[in-house]
Amino acid sequence: MTPFERRTRDCQERLADGDALILFPSPNLSYLGGFDESPGERHFFLFVTPDDAAFLAPALYGDQLRAETWVEDVRTWSDGDDPVDAVRELAADLDIGNGRVLLDETMWARFSMDLREALPDSEFGLATDVLSALRVRKDDAELDAIRRASEVADAAMRDVRDLGEDAVGMTENDLAGFVADRLEAHGGDGTSFATIVGSGPNAALPHHHHSEREVERGDPVVFDFGTRVDGYPSDQTRTVVFAGDPPEAYVEAHEVVRNAQQAAVDAVEPGVPCEDVDAAARDVIESAGYGDEFVHRTGHGVGLDVHEEPYIVDGNDRPLEPGMVFSVEPGIYRAGEWGVRIEDLVAVTDSGCERLNHTDRGWRVR
Amino acid sequence: MTPFERRTRDCQERLADGDALILFPSPNLSYLGGFDESPGERHFFLFVTPDDAAFLAPALYGDQLRAETWVEDVRTWSDGDDPVDAVRELAADLDIGNGRVLLDETMWARFSMDLREALPDSEFGLATDVLSALRVRKDDAELDAIRRASEVADAAMRDVRDLGEDAVGMTENDLAGFVADRLEAHGGDGTSFATIVGSGPNAALPHHHHSEREVERGDPVVFDFGTRVDGYPSDQTRTVVFAGDPPEAYVEAHEVVRNAQQAAVDAVEPGVPCEDVDAAARDVIESAGYGDEFVHRTGHGVGLDVHEEPYIVDGNDRPLEPGMVFSVEPGIYRAGEWGVRIEDLVAVTDSGCERLNHTDRGWRVR
Repeated sequence: MTPFERRTRDCQERLADGDALILFPSPNLSYLGGFDESPGERHFFLFVTPDDAAFLAPALYGDQLRAETWVEDVRTWSDGDDPVDAVRELAADLDIGNGRVLLDETMWARFSMDLREALPDSEFGLATDVLSALRVRKDDAELDAIRRASEVADAAMRDVRDLGEDAVGMTENDLAGFVADRLEAHGGDGTSFATIVGSGPNAALPHHHHSEREVERGDPVVFDFGTRVDGYPSDQTRTVVFAGDPPEAYVEAHEVVRNAQQAAVDAVEPGVPCEDVDAAARDVIESAGYGDEFVHRTGHGVGLDVHEEPYIVDGNDRPLEPGMVFSVEPGIYRAGEWGVRIEDLVAVTDSGCERLNHTDRGWRVR
Repeated sequence: MTPFERRTRDCQERLADGDALILFPSPNLSYLGGFDESPGERHFFLFVTPDDAAFLAPALYGDQLRAETWVEDVRTWSDGDDPVDAVRELAADLDIGNGRVLLDETMWARFSMDLREALPDSEFGLATDVLSALRVRKDDAELDAIRRASEVADAAMRDVRDLGEDAVGMTENDLAGFVADRLEAHGGDGTSFATIVGSGPNAALPHHHHSEREVERGDPVVFDFGTRVDGYPSDQTRTVVFAGDPPEAYVEAHEVVRNAQQAAVDAVEPGVPCEDVDAAARDVIESAGYGDEFVHRTGHGVGLDVHEEPYIVDGNDRPLEPGMVFSVEPGIYRAGEWGVRIEDLVAVTDSGCERLNHTDRGWRVR
């Protein structure tokens, strides 16, 4: 039995009679169906009921789904057919209609509207609760992939530090290209999200990507990037100064963030609520008087999605479990001046946690 | 007035009193809001009513939206707040509630469910009809960007042909890497979709990406790739044989596809229904006896989305208009053996069409 079929069986045990999951090209579909595809404008679904699993896909995918996936029931529709009719027919065959229909959380409105039209008597919900319980605990193969992706990110971050003074005068775009090159060179598969290189005042924008701004002496520069290995991502952040003296306030804030990050990592163990890890970082930052400048949550889970459960955020009382993997990434952002963020991935173990990133957390490159 | 604000004004004229568009990070949001972001797990919307436009975004985007977009009304919510409450508040301020709520077609189910909860008295629909009418006719700047992206793809395809016999023994993955390199070298911004390099039997899978299979003498190889310039994509396909003699049946099918593609391009002019362009290609292929092996529509529109309106498909009686840009890409797929597809982008002009791809359409590389 493939891991994909085994996961689907686990999932089916969590469904009540009459329930159906309807997935759409997404990490959830990859996780159960063992087939990777990007969302597109054609109706492409994996239906999972307590007893059955079936693809309903555009005709041009038919042979590929039959050859490459464990799912035996592959139905197709051709351009020119009405895919809503095809949904009605499959739903009738699988006895879907009066129970709950749990949609993939990333399913486009275009398709969820059509499913509501085809299944007017169903109660609609999200597949997330059923799938999150499975996906949130990584198995050994998944952990191994994330660990290796993190090693690649660490190796690329070392190369970034090794630029030293040579980085002065390079643009953020140049540096993002350098990061992409080094990730590939160390065996990563692309970037796992849009690389952030934020220098000087751009470091104060937590979701800045990169620009034509040139790095100057004394600039703090935020590097937040990751890659993929075997489909699983890494995600780490360091904030460094390549040459010259940074603002004094930055030096102080960097120390605060570093302590906050350590405090949050120290708080990680099974049974601890997610929000307590957030609070551990936030307490350090608030006590130091920077509370208003820490404008985001402390972290997010990482798996097939680079942002997924568990979210390390105030209000989330979900207890940590062994096998969960998430980021710990507090920051302080002084608008228009500078910013600092330090991020590692951690994996919850039976007794505490394993840090997956190991490079220097200081701001001096040497 | 920025082009983004002008487009929003055009859009507002098409809304009835009480209507609201709610967009989500997507090409539609880029088109009206002038802000590019990927979909994420946080609630991030652009509301457009007949009189107002407002962002509702996570707090960490607040400064950036105020600095970089024309939209003056930027509301934010912080991690830990309930974003559904924030939606209710904004909807009340903008008098949304009893009319139509038109959702971005790619909005995730996670968010459309929350909007349905926050706006229980609204009638839900899709923003597509309102926006498609605007987006489907490209203005001069948009056409110019697509034309330049197509020139880059053409230049990369010439480099592919120039590999000649050297391509024998290269893997599909190697060739996809070569394509990515050449697109960058000629000034493109990444790839506009997952590059397809399908050799031998893999050429028969229309949505195959690329694999470790090595190209052999006599293999037909499908190259389907594109890049972006100023945010707009190109998309072209050629099927070539680098060395040796391909199967005789392939040679015949290639000629049929080439004639079908020409017939479809010849059919393009304002007022002609989209389905007639599809029929022009399909008639040639069916008459030659390959009808069952042409398993997809003839083409798709290209703009901020690499697949968008107009779809060149049986049943679509929408008449072509000047400024529309779409692909013309018939194919024949012999399962387990070989495949052939030839694709150019065309732009509808006042009197006919302009082809945007100009490289050799034959299968011999020299």
